[in-house]
Amino acid sequence: MDFPKNFDFGERAIKLLDNIAEFGNTPNKEDGETRLLYSKEWLCAQEYLKTYLQEKGFSSYYDEIGNLFGKLEGTDCANETVLTGSHIDTVKNGGTLDGQYGIVAGIVAMEYLYETYGKPIRNIEVVSIAEEEGSRFPYAFWGSKNIFGLANRKDVIGIHDGNMVLFEDAMRNCGFDFKENDSKRRDDIKAFIETHIEQGAVLEKENKNIGIVNSIVGQRRFTIEIIGEPNHAGTTPLKYRKDAMVIASKIINKINEEAWTYGEPLVATVGRMEITPNIVNVVPGKVEFTLDIRHIDKEILKKFTSKVEEIIKNEKEASSLEVNISMWMDESPVPMCDDLVSIVEKQCRDLKVNYKIMHSGAGHDSQIIAQCVPTAMIFVPSKDGISHSPLEFTSKESLNLGIKVLIQTLYELAY
Amino acid sequence: MDFPKNFDFGERAIKLLDNIAEFGNTPNKEDGETRLLYSKEWLCAQEYLKTYLQEKGFSSYYDEIGNLFGKLEGTDCANETVLTGSHIDTVKNGGTLDGQYGIVAGIVAMEYLYETYGKPIRNIEVVSIAEEEGSRFPYAFWGSKNIFGLANRKDVIGIHDGNMVLFEDAMRNCGFDFKENDSKRRDDIKAFIETHIEQGAVLEKENKNIGIVNSIVGQRRFTIEIIGEPNHAGTTPLKYRKDAMVIASKIINKINEEAWTYGEPLVATVGRMEITPNIVNVVPGKVEFTLDIRHIDKEILKKFTSKVEEIIKNEKEASSLEVNISMWMDESPVPMCDDLVSIVEKQCRDLKVNYKIMHSGAGHDSQIIAQCVPTAMIFVPSKDGISHSPLEFTSKESLNLGIKVLIQTLYELAY
Repeated sequence: MDFPKNFDFGERAIKLLDNIAEFGNTPNKEDGETRLLYSKEWLCAQEYLKTYLQEKGFSSYYDEIGNLFGKLEGTDCANETVLTGSHIDTVKNGGTLDGQYGIVAGIVAMEYLYETYGKPIRNIEVVSIAEEEGSRFPYAFWGSKNIFGLANRKDVIGIHDGNMVLFEDAMRNCGFDFKENDSKRRDDIKAFIETHIEQGAVLEKENKNIGIVNSIVGQRRFTIEIIGEPNHAGTTPLKYRKDAMVIASKIINKINEEAWTYGEPLVATVGRMEITPNIVNVVPGKVEFTLDIRHIDKEILKKFTSKVEEIIKNEKEASSLEVNISMWMDESPVPMCDDLVSIVEKQCRDLKVNYKIMHSGAGHDSQIIAQCVPTAMIFVPSKDGISHSPLEFTSKESLNLGIKVLIQTLYELAY
Repeated sequence: MDFPKNFDFGERAIKLLDNIAEFGNTPNKEDGETRLLYSKEWLCAQEYLKTYLQEKGFSSYYDEIGNLFGKLEGTDCANETVLTGSHIDTVKNGGTLDGQYGIVAGIVAMEYLYETYGKPIRNIEVVSIAEEEGSRFPYAFWGSKNIFGLANRKDVIGIHDGNMVLFEDAMRNCGFDFKENDSKRRDDIKAFIETHIEQGAVLEKENKNIGIVNSIVGQRRFTIEIIGEPNHAGTTPLKYRKDAMVIASKIINKINEEAWTYGEPLVATVGRMEITPNIVNVVPGKVEFTLDIRHIDKEILKKFTSKVEEIIKNEKEASSLEVNISMWMDESPVPMCDDLVSIVEKQCRDLKVNYKIMHSGAGHDSQIIAQCVPTAMIFVPSKDGISHSPLEFTSKESLNLGIKVLIQTLYELAY
């Protein structure tokens, strides 16, 4: 595909992103955007996009729960839709790109394709997905799950946000409601392409311009609790101690060493720790810490879990302290569609892009949608790997390139 | 010395301790005693003891700053005093014994000696020391330092408690004031014996009834700060991380291993840790923890400090994270008086007590006083090693035994 010179998709995208950023519920720009599901800002952003799409000549509509679609009808296959997009909600004080870029990339791509090539054979739709982050209510992927009949109203009835507003009340206040039948799903969607910032620094560090995601990691989360004895730091000889901090350090060390022996893409993170009583001159009586492990292969997650349990068992026996582990999250890895990954890769080669086939270590709508239809993701680099922060940044050139790859991919699939 | 049968010093002590406990400023008994320097409770407790001592026929007086003395005058050496006692102040929600037992033991001993043997050759005095814990104001050992001219008013002028009450105002409200000359000291005191609960579980674990303290440990306290990079736990491969928690665990492990190679009485404690941002799915960008090390030999404290610095230097170089260590406390060990320790030991042998010569891992007034006059301490066991807690407990038998050892020691020194 020959793109006209001086045509900058990055600039078009930034204009749209800036407009969306107006609906961010933060007084200062340096606080980023807070656009929580079914909030006023959220509704305004969706309405803005609806109007924009209509002005550009696309039909635009909501589904029951508030996912917004913009549609470019195909000439031949009314029941075959190529879907692109991402989510419109943000974390608290999020950036301008996470979620939004995927929607904007879809819109800019669809505009260009329509302007340049007219109507496609199959429908192209852009979706501004209602929710992915789980930032307002304790439920994530509400938007994508609803498109494919994977959400169950029982899981959200009764849950509330930090201000005790019920999920269902917030939804109805925005003019939306549950679908008549939870399991009803779109069956015209034949492929989904999500463009997104990487949220990591791999592309940047390896000087790659585009990432093509072939898998989204599975993850398991654990809490490990070590119960020793709080003792006076001066009057308790080492031999009489049950020092929970010492045992915690040994376990963390061994988990880290083990993780390195597995190699990439395994990651293991002890992100949170609580020490009791947490006083300079008292031997810690209790330490509780979390462990987050991720990999693209479920079997390896299981194997690593067994290894962690073995480490804990050994330390428990060697120390005579009480050590407990409990798993409270277990999400399976989700492979992307090989054929679709190949199609995206072909576009990258065609565009002479310095790309990398990679996994995603973060969760995305694609991990829900890939369970139902062929799915792939296009990553653009994140400066310093930062996301979920007002400091999120991707260069205009990279935004431009991501959209070019998307345009060619959509063309290949729909024209 | 033959003690009369059926004479229970433990019972006498408990009665007095219960009376002192009335001045504790806690609504419920299970909250223990809170008797902070120059508080109403503190003044009432001192006044109670003053009256009690007078009723028992002893002269009783305060020094300028509020240390209370009860005096049994000697017949021959007016300028030679054998001093015993401990501190009347407590930590917040402290127990009935820490400090108080040493005062009460002294009073009960002096009463018995006077009743049984009349006046001694040298003066015997019991002191209820104004303050040791540093629980109200950021200053400790105010009482004992004043007796020996080691306190400097400059260090307390301007300091305040948690309610912004100035030290000097609190003192004056109780009717006390600075000495005319800070460095003025008692020069009649020839020996000091402090009876105290162990505050550790060594005597209990080793089935010893009495501890004779030959040294009070020196201690150094450090803060170790590790600055890495907060990163997404999913999208940041291990090789691109600067995980402050992993480095903290390595350092703690190595410090602990090193401490074991030094053997007793070295203790090293990481009691407090702060993790930033302390979130499950974020690689910790910063970890700060404290290290408390104690030993009876200053040279070994210095050597261990060098070793810790070496560990930190190595981890810093190996990891390329920023690691800083700063020492914010450096107290020298204080040996007790060998001759006095031998005298106490002789009484223990005479009484057929199962005793242990030991160091104190906690700080005591004796560490101040020993710098000026011959000093020794008598320890009684602490159940489960607990102190600074309403759960502090020592059996009546042990309280009795501690007083018997004190009585014989005072007799040996003053009669």
